[in-house]
Amino acid sequence: MRWVRFLVRPFTRKPTVVISQSDTLSRIFLTSRNLYTQVAETCCLGDGVQLDDFCKLGPNTVVGANSKIGRFTEIGSDCHIGSFVRLDSHVLVDSNTMIGDHCTVYPFAVLGYRPQDKKYKGEQTGLEIGSRCQIRENVKIERGTSFRNKTVIGNDVLLMSNVYVGHDSWLHDHVTVANNVSIAGHVELHPYCVIGGHSALHQFVRIGQGAMIGGKTIVVFQVESLQKPRGMAAIRRDVPPFCLVTGTPPRIRCLNYHQVWKKVTHHKHRKWMKQSFDYLFDSDDVSSIHQRAQHLLSQCSLSKDVSAIARYVIQEMCTFILSCHSSVRGLLTLVHNR
Amino acid sequence: MRWVRFLVRPFTRKPTVVISQSDTLSRIFLTSRNLYTQVAETCCLGDGVQLDDFCKLGPNTVVGANSKIGRFTEIGSDCHIGSFVRLDSHVLVDSNTMIGDHCTVYPFAVLGYRPQDKKYKGEQTGLEIGSRCQIRENVKIERGTSFRNKTVIGNDVLLMSNVYVGHDSWLHDHVTVANNVSIAGHVELHPYCVIGGHSALHQFVRIGQGAMIGGKTIVVFQVESLQKPRGMAAIRRDVPPFCLVTGTPPRIRCLNYHQVWKKVTHHKHRKWMKQSFDYLFDSDDVSSIHQRAQHLLSQCSLSKDVSAIARYVIQEMCTFILSCHSSVRGLLTLVHNR
Amino acid sequence: MRWVRFLVRPFTRKPTVVISQSDTLSRIFLTSRNLYTQVAETCCLGDGVQLDDFCKLGPNTVVGANSKIGRFTEIGSDCHIGSFVRLDSHVLVDSNTMIGDHCTVYPFAVLGYRPQDKKYKGEQTGLEIGSRCQIRENVKIERGTSFRNKTVIGNDVLLMSNVYVGHDSWLHDHVTVANNVSIAGHVELHPYCVIGGHSALHQFVRIGQGAMIGGKTIVVFQVESLQKPRGMAAIRRDVPPFCLVTGTPPRIRCLNYHQVWKKVTHHKHRKWMKQSFDYLFDSDDVSSIHQRAQHLLSQCSLSKDVSAIARYVIQEMCTFILSCHSSVRGLLTLVHNR
Repeated sequence: MRWVRFLVRPFTRKPTVVISQSDTLSRIFLTSRNLYTQVAETCCLGDGVQLDDFCKLGPNTVVGANSKIGRFTEIGSDCHIGSFVRLDSHVLVDSNTMIGDHCTVYPFAVLGYRPQDKKYKGEQTGLEIGSRCQIRENVKIERGTSFRNKTVIGNDVLLMSNVYVGHDSWLHDHVTVANNVSIAGHVELHPYCVIGGHSALHQFVRIGQGAMIGGKTIVVFQVESLQKPRGMAAIRRDVPPFCLVTGTPPRIRCLNYHQVWKKVTHHKHRKWMKQSFDYLFDSDDVSSIHQRAQHLLSQCSLSKDVSAIARYVIQEMCTFILSCHSSVRGLLTLVHNR
Repeated sequence: MRWVRFLVRPFTRKPTVVISQSDTLSRIFLTSRNLYTQVAETCCLGDGVQLDDFCKLGPNTVVGANSKIGRFTEIGSDCHIGSFVRLDSHVLVDSNTMIGDHCTVYPFAVLGYRPQDKKYKGEQTGLEIGSRCQIRENVKIERGTSFRNKTVIGNDVLLMSNVYVGHDSWLHDHVTVANNVSIAGHVELHPYCVIGGHSALHQFVRIGQGAMIGGKTIVVFQVESLQKPRGMAAIRRDVPPFCLVTGTPPRIRCLNYHQVWKKVTHHKHRKWMKQSFDYLFDSDDVSSIHQRAQHLLSQCSLSKDVSAIARYVIQEMCTFILSCHSSVRGLLTLVHNR
Repeated sequence: MRWVRFLVRPFTRKPTVVISQSDTLSRIFLTSRNLYTQVAETCCLGDGVQLDDFCKLGPNTVVGANSKIGRFTEIGSDCHIGSFVRLDSHVLVDSNTMIGDHCTVYPFAVLGYRPQDKKYKGEQTGLEIGSRCQIRENVKIERGTSFRNKTVIGNDVLLMSNVYVGHDSWLHDHVTVANNVSIAGHVELHPYCVIGGHSALHQFVRIGQGAMIGGKTIVVFQVESLQKPRGMAAIRRDVPPFCLVTGTPPRIRCLNYHQVWKKVTHHKHRKWMKQSFDYLFDSDDVSSIHQRAQHLLSQCSLSKDVSAIARYVIQEMCTFILSCHSSVRGLLTLVHNR
């Protein structure tokens, strides 16, 4: 990838012209195609960048090769937009935002704006978005506060329309968040977890790897209790990995079969996982959930006859439960009505 | 294809091709009024079309007589906008969208964009919107996928602010959808049904004619159970016509009196309808709902003493219930607590 | 009325009429800074007003000193924008809107647009917003109808992203409304009340002073019942002052300790308040809530040994309950499960 530095005179009488001292071809391309694109003098534009009419790039912003910036889109200062990124029209990106390669951002998204948190006093923070993310219409992602200094979105994340992601949240890779979900500040979503539409996540909540909250597309035929209402969950506690959470109030119902059964196909291993899950969450035992998790974790290494992936799921679950001792929120209440 | 920046000759009775640089008078008129309107050479504009500043019309797009296109509004290629349509400012219409006459679209609406469905691979599909629709702020309506090739919105539909309509959905005439409702893909809303605010409709759900989901404006004084919480329903099953669905989990509560009693005013006919409804949904009979619907349907033609409209309502209800055999979702769970 | 495209003479201390084509110096300044700002000839701009590119001000609109109007932002006719106001980019303000000093409006907000109410026939109404309000992204506030002629937002109000405020509503000072809340028409929110995220308020509902609905940040350790699900409430009845309402269906749970205990620190006074609250809402007494409120109100003036603020809270509560006789909605159902 070759970087072409454009020299721009931004506020002249005829602001259309983007002048590049290095590449005549690019200049012709841009002047013949663009109405009033405003590019700060200190911007770096990669090869083949397409700037649509009326877009604006702030100082020190870098746009990678072959990216497209839509009409009326505005990128603040000190941003770093990767290659093959597509920002649609009417997208607003505030300063100090990094967007990875191959991302697509749909109209009316607002990225990296000032947090709604009243404690934020304008400190210099940022937003990082990984590669191959899809960010749909009206998504709002806030910048960090001094707490963690940045909000982080991993790779391959899909945020559907009108999702709100609060300050200092951390969405790991392959997270999917459906329409109208509000994710408050300081939330951590571990890889591959799925948040169903219209849900709301409380501050400091952690959702474990591969967990599903009020899913819309889950397999509903295996467990009778799954016929209960799902979606629109208000999550105020940590959710362990690979669990399915549904209902009002939200409860841990069963393993997230939709994800787990893809990997664990053998009947015997599935049975062992179900038994382990029931022991953890549905036991008549007088021991606490932490004691059972401790016990199960020590047993896992001994269970040589189950597959590595099945053991991994249960181990992750136990480790997460044990870690909830030190979490801000504590574990989701363990009522588990079948 | 070249962009014509100053619109020319919009003033014939039928939509005709706009020819650039042919009419000095029009050009002067427009330059004095419009700033940087971009109209593709192959557009057709009807008599009295008003294009506001900075709007953009793609190639082969037709705009009917007396329509207004707002500031910063963008219409893609191959669209057909009817007469007396008002697109407010900041509206985005993607290619291959048809909008009927007398529609009003409010700011920040996004019509005909790429579905959120991961199965969509960019195939050539579209969106059709009927006449006299009101589409409020932030409404998002996706184009179809190869499943049905288009998303269809009927006539006289009201979509309130931030409604989301998924791919391949079909909203019939006179449907009303309140704020923040998410309608997933493949949903079918039959005529005159009303979806209360903050509800979410699952994929492939069908809502029968004149049904009401979690209504905000329903008559609450007739049935005691109506005092229960309404709105914000998460609908995962088909809802029969003329039923009222409320609660968490959503249940069929009673006839949608608000609509039905307008048409059925005679006390005797009302009583017959209530009895038929109770027989269908609240019977101690060991027969299945399908058997009861079958039985009631055969009785309807014999009930000569009730009005045609009362019979029609019950017949529609029975027919819908019988059709749920072959539906993707099945009927809403028939718990009906009074 | 003619549009003046290049703003002239905005630099007097008090808002004054901008005179077009009179001052070459200013015009040069502005052309060197602004791209196609459109300001009607009859606008008044205060000292130090900053107009960004492509914004538009309608006729007779007044913008106070040191306010900033963002890119692509449009202000209709007869608006009055205060001093030190910041309208971000892509904000739409319809005609007849008043915004107080020191307000901040974020992108894609739509203020003062036509109500969704079908009864509205285009009558001349308005919207009033007080000082120091924060209005986040995608917030929609409708103008009034002939019912009250205006929608009113008080001072120091915080409306988080995607809040919807219906016609003729009245939000008093210091109200906080979290993400995705829909406030239907004619709603009255008294000072200092807090509405939790994803809630929906029915038409004509009144929320008393200092009440909290489905709060996200409340103190959860004092009352066991507070562990129940909160947020996402659908409110259809009036809520008395200083109460906490949670759950599905929403119920009055306890005093809004988060606000009340800040003011009432003495243990004895707190105990008296709790007893008064229990007497009102949780009594085995056969008397009605109105009788108990009447009785408690008469006792309050006699209780010389409790602090004035504690008495004030209970008095407000009783007065509100007594006033619910004449309210459209009636009091929230008084089930109060501990």
